[in-house]
Amino acid sequence: MRIDVLTLFPEMCEGVFSTSILGKAREKNIVSLNTVNFRDFSGNKHNSVDDTPYGGGGGMVLKPDPIFAAVEHVLAGASGSPEVKPRIILMCPQGQTYTQSIAEELAREEHLIFICGHYEGYDERIREHLVTDELSIGDYVLTGGELPALTVIDSIVRLQPGALGNETSAVSDSFSTGLLEYPHYTRPAEFRGWKVPDILVSGHHANIEVWRREQALQRTLQRRPDLLDTAELTPKDRKVLERLKRETQPEQNLT
Amino acid sequence: MRIDVLTLFPEMCEGVFSTSILGKAREKNIVSLNTVNFRDFSGNKHNSVDDTPYGGGGGMVLKPDPIFAAVEHVLAGASGSPEVKPRIILMCPQGQTYTQSIAEELAREEHLIFICGHYEGYDERIREHLVTDELSIGDYVLTGGELPALTVIDSIVRLQPGALGNETSAVSDSFSTGLLEYPHYTRPAEFRGWKVPDILVSGHHANIEVWRREQALQRTLQRRPDLLDTAELTPKDRKVLERLKRETQPEQNLT
Repeated sequence: MRIDVLTLFPEMCEGVFSTSILGKAREKNIVSLNTVNFRDFSGNKHNSVDDTPYGGGGGMVLKPDPIFAAVEHVLAGASGSPEVKPRIILMCPQGQTYTQSIAEELAREEHLIFICGHYEGYDERIREHLVTDELSIGDYVLTGGELPALTVIDSIVRLQPGALGNETSAVSDSFSTGLLEYPHYTRPAEFRGWKVPDILVSGHHANIEVWRREQALQRTLQRRPDLLDTAELTPKDRKVLERLKRETQPEQNLT
Repeated sequence: MRIDVLTLFPEMCEGVFSTSILGKAREKNIVSLNTVNFRDFSGNKHNSVDDTPYGGGGGMVLKPDPIFAAVEHVLAGASGSPEVKPRIILMCPQGQTYTQSIAEELAREEHLIFICGHYEGYDERIREHLVTDELSIGDYVLTGGELPALTVIDSIVRLQPGALGNETSAVSDSFSTGLLEYPHYTRPAEFRGWKVPDILVSGHHANIEVWRREQALQRTLQRRPDLLDTAELTPKDRKVLERLKRETQPEQNLT
């Protein structure tokens, strides 16, 4: 898999690309991670990549020329077969909200190009005539598209075969199973007077499985009940949920 | 404002902390950004910070000791007044979904401590007895808490007075006004045959304002209708929305 990131701040990306799972995936040639500074494609002697908006108003707007030229440079240099059509992804607050199912879809692509603006708007023609996808990682305002692009890249690279090695995450199943994770405990068995639940040191594996599933259901019900609409639930899960709902309701029925 | 990030990968954070808006805010002493490698607080000669989970199963779990010790080290070194109670924030998929209103709340704090695990679960006692907040930046699985913490930090630092300088973002209003942004255009007026809309070069500012508001309403209606439930809308906005809804409906009524 090949990933190119168009950015004015390549150094923001390089520190992340060379560390931990991404760094190892790069070393193992599982993924090729590149940055392109689109200021190199400004096409003017002042190296400017933005200008004031037509129609007035504050802020600056990224010009179409440098972005189109940088993307075309990447496409010309890509050695893939001609039938590979890279996804060209614009990171912006107006984009589709990123989720694990989009991560799984993008993880199957051969070539992704990310466009990251920085405290700027994008000229609308970039959106209309160049990009294939617009993504937002959440409903909050950031100074640029670099952290969102790195976040999306991290979630995609970890899904490539061999990327995680044996360090498979305990956290990793949170959105794959559709439920939040059950609580984890490790040594010491008692820390500052706080003990690990008895069930987990009982050695009774079937009971532990039942406890963990119930904890996962309870946590999801308390914190993210919206996830239960799409989670894969067994008839037994549904019975447990009915009981948990009854147990947490009585205070509301006293009035 | 002071921010400390507990991580096993300080180098992932430093590249981001020294670049662009965060780098400038740090230089101007608007924010103090620090990393603490909690492996330095392992308290054992193998420097191990994780262990296998009680009750069995795959993955590793971060031990409570190094995290408690690292947080207490930060608290002991904080020179703030004793009544400053730092928020201790765990980045994890089980956390509250981060939004711009949480960013605005956290931006008013004096001291924030972020705990970032990496392809691991957290011992539940960290959650129960140490942290004040648990945050998730979205419903996707990542290899660690560093990119989420950096994302939250970016959104908070840009809200500090003086942090953005005069580079106020054209993008910045997306979630502040509750609507998605209207389209932006800059030079050239014609790029590869694609022209800027006539209205924007008309010089008629009142008409431009009307057009922009309608574009913002239309884009929000098409892409994120959920935002309209909480957006601040004038009676005129509501009339425009009624018309836009009627205009996009007819195909569905033909059957």
